[in-house]
Formats: sequence, C-alpha cells, structure tokens
Amino acid sequence: MTFKVKGYAAYTNTEALRPFEFERREPRENDVEIEITHCGVCHSDIHQVKNEWGSSRYPMVPGHEIVGIVTRVGEKVTKFKVGDHVGVGCLVDSCLSCPSCQSNLEQFCQNGSVGTYNSVGKDGQLTYGGYSQKVVVREEFTLKIPKNLPLAATAPLLCAGITTYSPLRHWKVSKGMKVAIVGLGGLGHMGVKFAHAFGAEVYVFSKSPKKRDDALKLGAKDLLNYEDEATLKNHQGTFDFILDTVSAPHDLNTLLRYLKIEKNLVLVGLPDVPPTLQVGSLIWGRKSIAGSLIGGIKETQEMLDFCGEHNIVSEIELIKMNEINTAYERMLKSDVKYRFVIDNKTI
Amino acid sequence: MTFKVKGYAAYTNTEALRPFEFERREPRENDVEIEITHCGVCHSDIHQVKNEWGSSRYPMVPGHEIVGIVTRVGEKVTKFKVGDHVGVGCLVDSCLSCPSCQSNLEQFCQNGSVGTYNSVGKDGQLTYGGYSQKVVVREEFTLKIPKNLPLAATAPLLCAGITTYSPLRHWKVSKGMKVAIVGLGGLGHMGVKFAHAFGAEVYVFSKSPKKRDDALKLGAKDLLNYEDEATLKNHQGTFDFILDTVSAPHDLNTLLRYLKIEKNLVLVGLPDVPPTLQVGSLIWGRKSIAGSLIGGIKETQEMLDFCGEHNIVSEIELIKMNEINTAYERMLKSDVKYRFVIDNKTI
Repeated sequence: MTFKVKGYAAYTNTEALRPFEFERREPRENDVEIEITHCGVCHSDIHQVKNEWGSSRYPMVPGHEIVGIVTRVGEKVTKFKVGDHVGVGCLVDSCLSCPSCQSNLEQFCQNGSVGTYNSVGKDGQLTYGGYSQKVVVREEFTLKIPKNLPLAATAPLLCAGITTYSPLRHWKVSKGMKVAIVGLGGLGHMGVKFAHAFGAEVYVFSKSPKKRDDALKLGAKDLLNYEDEATLKNHQGTFDFILDTVSAPHDLNTLLRYLKIEKNLVLVGLPDVPPTLQVGSLIWGRKSIAGSLIGGIKETQEMLDFCGEHNIVSEIELIKMNEINTAYERMLKSDVKYRFVIDNKTI
Repeated sequence: MTFKVKGYAAYTNTEALRPFEFERREPRENDVEIEITHCGVCHSDIHQVKNEWGSSRYPMVPGHEIVGIVTRVGEKVTKFKVGDHVGVGCLVDSCLSCPSCQSNLEQFCQNGSVGTYNSVGKDGQLTYGGYSQKVVVREEFTLKIPKNLPLAATAPLLCAGITTYSPLRHWKVSKGMKVAIVGLGGLGHMGVKFAHAFGAEVYVFSKSPKKRDDALKLGAKDLLNYEDEATLKNHQGTFDFILDTVSAPHDLNTLLRYLKIEKNLVLVGLPDVPPTLQVGSLIWGRKSIAGSLIGGIKETQEMLDFCGEHNIVSEIELIKMNEINTAYERMLKSDVKYRFVIDNKTI
C-alpha cells in the first residue's frame, strides 16, 4: 500500500536536480505521516548528489533536516497526534536492540542504521528524503518540535544542530570554559550559539575576518585567524575544547597547539583529503583528537527541547524548491548565511 | 663545586660512543648523589645520539633509565639516606609551581621541564645522563625503588615502564576489559605485563608471529597480526583500549577499526613520518586518538611501588659499557629481548 508524493531528485551524479514523483508507504501501525513544511539543505546533500562519497543511489531525493506537521498516525502510535509539529533528522530506522541502540546511540547501530535518504530500509526499499511533500517515519525516529519555535528556522537543527550540540554536551562544555569553534558555516554558527548558551567563552577560528561581526552577534567573544600563530601566542595552550566543523583541508596540528593539556579537539567535518597528524602534537600534553557523528534520537529530542526553552534556531535563507540548484552553487562558494531551507509548499 | 665522573658519550651525530670524563656538581642542600649501578638503553637514546629529532647537543651522555644506590645527601634532604635504592627517569627538574606541575604532570611543565640528558638545567649547564658512574639529582626527582626488586631489571621501568603504565592507568584499564598492545618491544612488553596485572584480557598486535610464545609468557591471551583484517573480522569493534607503542610507520585507521565505539587509541611512539588520519574512522563511533608522554613523578613512584608489590620488572639483556655501540646496532634490527641494560660497574 503506497501513495504518490512529489519531490525533487538527482537522477545522476552530473545533472541538476529536477521534479520527481514517487511512492511512499501508507503509514504502518507505528508510523507517523508528516506533511513536510520545510527542509534544510545540508552540505552533505551536495556530496551525495555528486556521489563524492561513492555510495550514491539514484534517483536520489536528498534532505535530512525535515520539519512539518503530523497528518496521520498509525493505530499504535502513542507519542504523536495529527497537528503536532515534528521533525526528522538523518536517521529513520535502526535495530533498537544492539548495545549502541540501547545506549541511545542509534547512529552507531551495530546492525546498520537506516539513513533518511540514499539508504535501503528494512523493507528493502530505497529511502527518499525531505525534498518532498510528505514523509512516513516510525514514531521512534520522529522528534517533537516545541510549539514556540518557527518551523523553517528549526529545520537545520535536525542535522547541523545536533551535530554540534552532541559533542559540546558529551565533552561537557560549560561556564568557565574557553571554547573554539572552527569554521562559521551551517554547522559552525550553531556551534557558537550552543557553546554560548552553555555559558562558555566562545571564539570562532576562521580565516575570514569579514565574518567577525556575525561571530560576535552569534555570541562569540572574538574571531581569530588561528593560522596567525605569532599574533595569537597568548591563546596557545589556553582552550578547554575545540570543535572543528571544517571539511576543507586544514592543519589539525596547528589547532592542537591552542588546547590546554589533556583537552580534546573534536572533528565533525569529513575532509576529502585525510589530514596528517604530527603525533608529537598529541603526546606533548596528553591531548586527544576525536570524531563525532550527529547524535542519537534521545539527545536530538533533548536538543530540540533546549532550543525551545532558549529560543535557539538556525540563521536561514528560505528558498523555493526550484532554486535548489542555484543554492548548491552558492553553497560551494560559501555564499549562504547560514543555511538554506526549502519552503516545501513550493514543490 | 664539582667532582669528576667517567661515562660514555656521543661526540658527534655520526661517531660511535666512547669514553668521556666530565664534571658533576657537588650535591646541593636538596640534592641526592647516586652511584649508578645500571642504566637502561632506550630507543630514544639512538634518536638523540644521531640527532634525528634535530635538538642534540654534544658531547652527549645518554641514559634516562637510571638505578643505583644513594652515596651522599644534601643537608635538607628528608626522603633519602645513604644506601637507599633509587631511580631517576627522564626528568631531573621542573618549576613545580605551574598548573601542570601542581597536577603532578611535571613532564608538561609550562616553564619547561629539564631532561635527564641533552637538556639545559636551571643552572645553565648541559645535563648528562646515566651512561656514567654517578649522578646528582634534586630529591623531588629521585624515586624510591622497593628493596625486593633487582636493580638491573628495574632500570627500564623508569622510562619504558612509566610510559606504558601511565596511559593504562589514565584510561582506567582493568578487569573485564579487552586491550591490545601494539608492538612487542621495550615498551610493548611492559605494556603487556601491566595490562595483564591490571586484570585485562590482553592481545599483542604484531606483524611478527614468531613473538607469539613470548607474548603468551608475558601474559597475553594471543598475538594477532592486526593487518590481516579478513581473518580478524570477529575482533573488529571489540577492544576497549589500544596502546600503540610502535614508532615505525603503520596505519592508525586499521587500528581504530578494532575499537568499540567511544574508545581510545593511545600513541606513545613517535613516528618519523606523520601518519594520515581517515577522519571517518574517528567520526563513526565517536572514537579518539590520544598521545601520552612518560608520567609525572608521583605516578612514577606509584608505578615502582606497584611493581614492588607484584614483582614486575623488565626482561633485560645485561651489557658492558663498551658493548653499547653493538647494542645500538642490534636494537635497530629489533634484536633485543626486550631491553638492554648497562652494567655501570664496567665503565
């Protein structure tokens, strides 16, 4: 049992996205049907559309920063009702029983989590994402969105938000800590907002001095060109935590020098070219480099609730569906403040 | 006020070591004078002698795995008396007042710790190490050696011992944990002994299957060729901790695949060629790579006391002082089980 949905898809890795009509399953007993009002445009959408990670399946309907309104619920759904504001992030399924899932880390499901798009679901069907009118998702992977948050600007919280919230929480960023966020883009600007909301003294590490005004408005104390080590001598060895959101090639060893001893540099960007590691940069000071991937469902809900309480949303530029290809071109030039969000009524 | 001491020195970075006579200071009020009975031969001695780290000063008297007997003490020394068995590791001085020193991490002294050799002391003099008859050290950097431990086999504990003990303790290796020690050399064989003594299930990761018998004797459950990933599929994602003691180039990303989610790979070897890091190996599973450098004085004493209680010492091959150049050649071929120790009476 399926129904028809309109969306936008990549048909190959070289063509522009264009309209695509496809089938979604009728809601099963534990499913929620969502009318998608908005979908954020993540940089990883471009990587996937162009098959830059080598695992793309076409036609591909991207989009994993989904918000909308519940239109139907299966009979066993208990947490949602028609009319609720809800969201869907990068995951739509996992086994829920392996040690990772039992630890609320469904993103590391040992039996394989199912991505919101470009994944194969438990039913063997290719998953289609949020560049579409509706989506059907099991209730365990549906998030509640606080009513006070505007839906459009909430969409990017489902990926950019949780990707930065999770490591800041995991490494206990809080008042009294000096924190750097590397890069001020879709991820970075959320990192600044969260680290500031958690009470830390926040610096943006960026090579674009023209972003300083924005950095300060978002809550940063200053924007520093971290490669200018001579000028920043006094900042070296003083940071409690560095969250690196940049996927373009850059030198991790330089960043490590800004950390206090025994502190962590955490990477959430995935560079195409693997960086080289001066092991001495870790050994002198018992420092660590770690990675972090989105967050589990429980933590994503916690993040949305936190945003509701503190009125935190993303800075966005709303676009029509047929502007997506231009939006991709602008993103490749870093010409967006700070996240494109699709108005799904325009599909 | 100085006195004459005989030792062995490198005069340049290309010549064999040969006899050298030099001056040591008379003990100051807080100094301990030690008659060196034995000195371990660390691989870093070779790096320094050959100036492979670019900071060598000549003539150089290497040696930072020093054990011996107290022969004189300054009038304000309270912790040591003539006849005590004592040791000196990689450090002979630091400020003792900066945050690192106050946290018992003198190896990361923010005002610069003083190495046992090839360093400039607070008095402006070049420090000379343990390939010599006597050494004079302030009491804060002198370690007590439990009387039940044989001095010769205890010498390597002062560097190889603490270098492996410290990370295993810091990352709380204990009963119920599955741990890998990468490399079975001077450092690795101590790592196996300690991890086993702490109750962990220990595996040696090595490309030398002929070392299996030794690995088992030292306490390991098995020796695995970690590069044979097809055979070891069942071991992937199962380790709680990996301690990597290898400084020859090798692939860190392969090692990361053996870790459970959220666990740590800790490096204590310093490769000449910086490894490349597949960031995805860290991001998928929120894994970390950290470094660790020897240990502070308090922890080194704790390690020696633990070794006294559990009768843990190094596996050694005792050599005469004039055999040092041959020993270096054999070390470069990994032909030593597992540490050369100089009998300093032969100087």
